[in-house]
Amino acid sequence: MAGKVKTRDRILQTSLALFNQEGEAQVSTVDIAAVMGISPGNLYYHFRGKEVIIEALFDDFEEEMRQVLSAPIKRPLDIEDNWIFVYILFEEINDFRFFYYGLASVLERCPNLRPRFARLLKLKQDTVDAILTALEKGGLITFGPGEQDALATRLAAHLTFWLQYRDLTAPAQSSRTIINDGVYSTMIQIAPYIAGDRAPYAALLTEYFKKQR
Amino acid sequence: MAGKVKTRDRILQTSLALFNQEGEAQVSTVDIAAVMGISPGNLYYHFRGKEVIIEALFDDFEEEMRQVLSAPIKRPLDIEDNWIFVYILFEEINDFRFFYYGLASVLERCPNLRPRFARLLKLKQDTVDAILTALEKGGLITFGPGEQDALATRLAAHLTFWLQYRDLTAPAQSSRTIINDGVYSTMIQIAPYIAGDRAPYAALLTEYFKKQR
Repeated sequence: MAGKVKTRDRILQTSLALFNQEGEAQVSTVDIAAVMGISPGNLYYHFRGKEVIIEALFDDFEEEMRQVLSAPIKRPLDIEDNWIFVYILFEEINDFRFFYYGLASVLERCPNLRPRFARLLKLKQDTVDAILTALEKGGLITFGPGEQDALATRLAAHLTFWLQYRDLTAPAQSSRTIINDGVYSTMIQIAPYIAGDRAPYAALLTEYFKKQR
Repeated sequence: MAGKVKTRDRILQTSLALFNQEGEAQVSTVDIAAVMGISPGNLYYHFRGKEVIIEALFDDFEEEMRQVLSAPIKRPLDIEDNWIFVYILFEEINDFRFFYYGLASVLERCPNLRPRFARLLKLKQDTVDAILTALEKGGLITFGPGEQDALATRLAAHLTFWLQYRDLTAPAQSSRTIINDGVYSTMIQIAPYIAGDRAPYAALLTEYFKKQR
């Protein structure tokens, strides 16, 4: 029984690595079995098709994202904590990046992931909104009418589409650079809402993230 | 000869309509021929496969986008003109929306569109950047270090991913609502950089776009 569980996990790990590396559409269950050195029949015994593997991987991803995203709602963060939080979010997304790079084709293959992906996006938005509310209550940032809602929406969209965007505009960069730039372009969006003079914050941010590259 | 040209155009129009309606992946050349009431052989005489149709549609889209995007670089716009400009951009994108909704799967099928799509994205970014420079020179907006570049990047990304984002978060809405909200969420991103008090601008914007819905 322990052996079975292990094979199942290995199939998921191998699939995730191959999907991330080559794109989900390029990888068949036969490829996965070949890389693992098991028979297609053995793989089929554990997962009856690629869709089932994709859905199992989404289960894992959803679980981890829910854990990460629930943290700041329970205990609001200050501005520096948010940097780290956004890093963790992007790292999580990067670990399951084939969902993001191939979003349209994954959702075509597994239409029942569509509402679940949408719920995850909504959860991102709610989390960002909660953080912004905490920052505004703390007097760190201020919003005009409609601005908080618009910012929460677009930060959630930014988290979702950043990888695709970078893949189009600057392909073949390291994960570290992509994540780093993703965090920077998240944080710089908050800068203009900072109460008082925002220039020192923007300068600090730009300086800090340049050093990371 | 005139007859041939006409059939070619009709194939493109029908394909575009079907791709937009049902998603490119769901529509075969046999479907297109059937909707038009011509034989698959006749269609094949004009286009040797779906890839060729997709690329011909991209030629049209690219041509129109280049025209739209070159306008404000030649003659800078004021803030109100920009609303109209962003409307036109979103309408153009909406006319060829299957490229955006199914981006990953279109680029998988036609990999040679990838650099062309990237160039178009770069052109969007340059145009936005030129507009922001003009607005800053005119004293209408001000930027801290790194902010203009970051805003141009994310407005270009916003134009590219807005349709996918809305499709995930609020499916089955009318094109008019999606475009309208897309323009609003573009303009509200410029609000915080407005020189002096931005609240009246944000309020005006929110009021105006609520009325449109």
